[in-house]
Amino acid sequence: MSSIAARLIPTWLRQYQLATLPTDVIAGLVVGVLVIPQSLGYAVLAGLPPVYGLYAAIVPVIVYAWLGSSNVQAVGPVAITAIMTASSLLPYADKGAEQYALMASLLAFMVGALLWVAGRLKLGWIMQFISRGVSAGFVSGAAVLIFVSQLKYLTAIPVAGSSLIGYLSSLQMYMRQLHPLTLLIGVIAFALLVANRYASKWVWRTWLSASSAKWAERLFPLILLGVAIILSMALHWSALGVATIGSIPQGLPSFTLPHLPDVQEALKLLPTAGLMALIVFVSSSSVASTYARLRGEHFDANRELTGLGLANLSGGLFQSFAVAGGFSRTAINVDSGAKTPMASLVTVVVMIAALIAFGNALAPLPYALLGATIMASIIGLIDIDTLKSAWQRDRLDAASFIAAFAGVLIFGLNTGLVIGLMVSFASLIWQSSKPHVAIVGQLGGTGHFRNINRHDVVTFDNLLLLRIDESLFFGNSESVHLRILKALQQYPEARELILIMSAVNHIDLTAQEMLSTLNKELAQQHKRLHFSFVKGPVMDVIGHTPLITELSGQVYLSTLDAVNSLTAR
Amino acid sequence: MSSIAARLIPTWLRQYQLATLPTDVIAGLVVGVLVIPQSLGYAVLAGLPPVYGLYAAIVPVIVYAWLGSSNVQAVGPVAITAIMTASSLLPYADKGAEQYALMASLLAFMVGALLWVAGRLKLGWIMQFISRGVSAGFVSGAAVLIFVSQLKYLTAIPVAGSSLIGYLSSLQMYMRQLHPLTLLIGVIAFALLVANRYASKWVWRTWLSASSAKWAERLFPLILLGVAIILSMALHWSALGVATIGSIPQGLPSFTLPHLPDVQEALKLLPTAGLMALIVFVSSSSVASTYARLRGEHFDANRELTGLGLANLSGGLFQSFAVAGGFSRTAINVDSGAKTPMASLVTVVVMIAALIAFGNALAPLPYALLGATIMASIIGLIDIDTLKSAWQRDRLDAASFIAAFAGVLIFGLNTGLVIGLMVSFASLIWQSSKPHVAIVGQLGGTGHFRNINRHDVVTFDNLLLLRIDESLFFGNSESVHLRILKALQQYPEARELILIMSAVNHIDLTAQEMLSTLNKELAQQHKRLHFSFVKGPVMDVIGHTPLITELSGQVYLSTLDAVNSLTAR
Repeated sequence: MSSIAARLIPTWLRQYQLATLPTDVIAGLVVGVLVIPQSLGYAVLAGLPPVYGLYAAIVPVIVYAWLGSSNVQAVGPVAITAIMTASSLLPYADKGAEQYALMASLLAFMVGALLWVAGRLKLGWIMQFISRGVSAGFVSGAAVLIFVSQLKYLTAIPVAGSSLIGYLSSLQMYMRQLHPLTLLIGVIAFALLVANRYASKWVWRTWLSASSAKWAERLFPLILLGVAIILSMALHWSALGVATIGSIPQGLPSFTLPHLPDVQEALKLLPTAGLMALIVFVSSSSVASTYARLRGEHFDANRELTGLGLANLSGGLFQSFAVAGGFSRTAINVDSGAKTPMASLVTVVVMIAALIAFGNALAPLPYALLGATIMASIIGLIDIDTLKSAWQRDRLDAASFIAAFAGVLIFGLNTGLVIGLMVSFASLIWQSSKPHVAIVGQLGGTGHFRNINRHDVVTFDNLLLLRIDESLFFGNSESVHLRILKALQQYPEARELILIMSAVNHIDLTAQEMLSTLNKELAQQHKRLHFSFVKGPVMDVIGHTPLITELSGQVYLSTLDAVNSLTAR
Repeated sequence: MSSIAARLIPTWLRQYQLATLPTDVIAGLVVGVLVIPQSLGYAVLAGLPPVYGLYAAIVPVIVYAWLGSSNVQAVGPVAITAIMTASSLLPYADKGAEQYALMASLLAFMVGALLWVAGRLKLGWIMQFISRGVSAGFVSGAAVLIFVSQLKYLTAIPVAGSSLIGYLSSLQMYMRQLHPLTLLIGVIAFALLVANRYASKWVWRTWLSASSAKWAERLFPLILLGVAIILSMALHWSALGVATIGSIPQGLPSFTLPHLPDVQEALKLLPTAGLMALIVFVSSSSVASTYARLRGEHFDANRELTGLGLANLSGGLFQSFAVAGGFSRTAINVDSGAKTPMASLVTVVVMIAALIAFGNALAPLPYALLGATIMASIIGLIDIDTLKSAWQRDRLDAASFIAAFAGVLIFGLNTGLVIGLMVSFASLIWQSSKPHVAIVGQLGGTGHFRNINRHDVVTFDNLLLLRIDESLFFGNSESVHLRILKALQQYPEARELILIMSAVNHIDLTAQEMLSTLNKELAQQHKRLHFSFVKGPVMDVIGHTPLITELSGQVYLSTLDAVNSLTAR
């Protein structure tokens, strides 16, 4: 095999063993069939015609199968990217369906481009950017928004907005447009789906074995969809005013260059695309890394970035909206026996078959049923358990949860996520804003120096020895500054201040400027500033800066050197 | 003196020594007179009639003098709060001047309320939230935006927008409306002001002493303003189409309840108000703490929050827009001999006198002159020096500078600030995302355990001892997880894993869940997880959580205990 072909064909395919083909095919078929209702629903949630849910499950899935990091992760349209798409494209909602769909693909393209660039820059570590509390709070808030947004399909009331208040006030405003039959269909479907999901141990397990019950539960939404289509045709629901999805355009998604409105419009979408890229990456890598560990495989975050990036980038060129790895579809994939990305390719075949074959078969399906499907599946994302355990185990993370959750409901998805992140970073700053700074003295006649409050040590009248026990950065430099000034006030006799830097791994610009200011302040009082035990990498950074070149004192290799040199004079 | 009176009258006033009155009065008069042109200009920058700049220098200044933390800081309208006001109220720009002014006061009220609440919650440490790079990048970007926004007064072209592209494209669009005489006046004024500021060592110091030259430089803008008024009257500039500020309403700002549009509108302003509050606090406390150190006084960040909060809150009730402590006006105040907030009260008297006396005296002043004043004073805020030193001394902070600077120019002030903050936090995460995790062994027969790569130590086949050298949080928990799994692969024989937690000061929820997951993963491989040397405060937090209650192994007080107990079996 030539090296070019070798590079184009992924390792899993070159080493593919035919023995795994049957289980891969079965898993692919199962996932393909089961996720159809969801896919249609998420497209609607994103503000697109239902068929776009199938489009989003074709090109990105093929590309991810080729290039993604995970062997078993099933990517596709997910609830969070769908609602983020809807909320960021709200300003374009009245510009016509075609224009809107082009914007949704542009957004997917931008998300993909950002992910791909991040992968090339090896920013895989950024998956650790979001704390558990923030991500659970954000997803829970988004789930509530999604739930409320779907009420429009259950009531036929045109609900719109990007925050909870927006939704609820428009719901109230148009109350008179409530369509009773639509509501009845939606409520019954919702009740059945919730019962299927949360009461399955009583419903299915009374007749079936545990594993059959699991499959019955998974198949039920699809059966309900079929029943609804039959009822809708038989009872002429459409004629009675129930909104149905109508005929689905046949055929595959076509190559369509994303529409670039004007530079300013595209730039406005960029921060949103950045947040979406972050969410796509964090949620997908959480799925992929969990399954990689379960399967004893290595998870490569940078490859996940590249794979997701190219999946969304190419999806954006083929009428897809933004996709991510989904926990539930990946679970079904693995449970059904998927071993390699071949399963995902089979899923794509199912989607293509659906697109070609369904045509008008789905036309009578009421939107209320898609809404109910999403509402029933979204409840599980409201993560009260994490809030509870955060409250018991880490109050600061509980605060981040609440900030992200309330932020999403009050200010919308993007602002809510940013507020949650800010609170989680504020907690970090708070925790390290008061680092330990110890006044130390010499232990006996040794070269060891210890905290004067804990050990019986020798001190020197003209010397003040301070050990800084944490890296210095903007989040603690002012606190450390004040702590040092206070120690100098306590020991007014000391004319030489020695800062012991053995525990300092970084000194950022803010802290360097603080130390320079301290140096000048001391010089005015005819005192000198010295450093000891500066680590090599730190010295490499600060060695040629004004902090060292303008230092009134010296840099000593060890504290003992400093003390010997400064007491000898 | 009764205790209520004692509480109402600030300490500095109760202990006021008449000896300092003369210098306070002189400083107050100097500041009051010198900042008039700036104050008028900042109001215009905020999108308000010029008189609002005087309003903003009355009530907030009195309140800050009463309650603020600094004896010498001069608060008032500043460039950054003015442009942030303008950019966040852009959607209200066409709703009429009165409505707009009410919204500006509402914004000041909200900023004040947030600052006051933060002060009550003792969030003073939040001043360390913004790194040097982010704040310099943000201010520099804002300065460029301010500079460009003032072109409309120099050209008479209606420029609007919230990002650089917005400004420049609208500038280009209306190019034909350029008014040559206005441009001539503006450019001459700008050139004179820049020469006064940056060439003062050649201009003034050739004739004057250093200190006289400083005052000549400071007085020059005021003289130019007077000359412009006289020329404008003499040459009938207004009749020639030059926009002049027209008659200023006489009288003091009146008590006006801020206008609450509807809840949703007010909520939309809240995130902006939050960012403005952060900027007001960080910039003011940077001024106040610098001068507190110079004067050997204690700086109380929480009192600064409360003082700024009540100043803005009450200002919002008296037609003020958001104010902050200004570096240049504080420098003038201190240089002129201010010793106490009495100087600020004298400044207020000057403002009141100006309001009552000026009336129509300022009417002929061209807007172009105010624009030129702002453009000349704003150049100094473009902080290339900090970018240069960040580039040399801390690349990550240089990245934060560039992110905030470019973000402000491309996406506007709020988004730019958030992008800068995100980049600075990402740097933090990156730095601590790969903490040191050492495989350790027993030193001789002692109770000491050291890194196996650095010391000649004893290891045990069934035990793996890992020392984690940093607190565990969301930013490094996945890296630590992977590191531990890798060590386990290196030592497949080990059935007991002991994590030595002596350097771990916190374990947040994300890290707790990671350790719980690790515990389960180990249990599946019939391995056990133990901890040793867990610090007291950490144990208090995790003691009753599933991490400990479901732990397969034990928590040992010391590593020696763990080793003895686990090798004895």
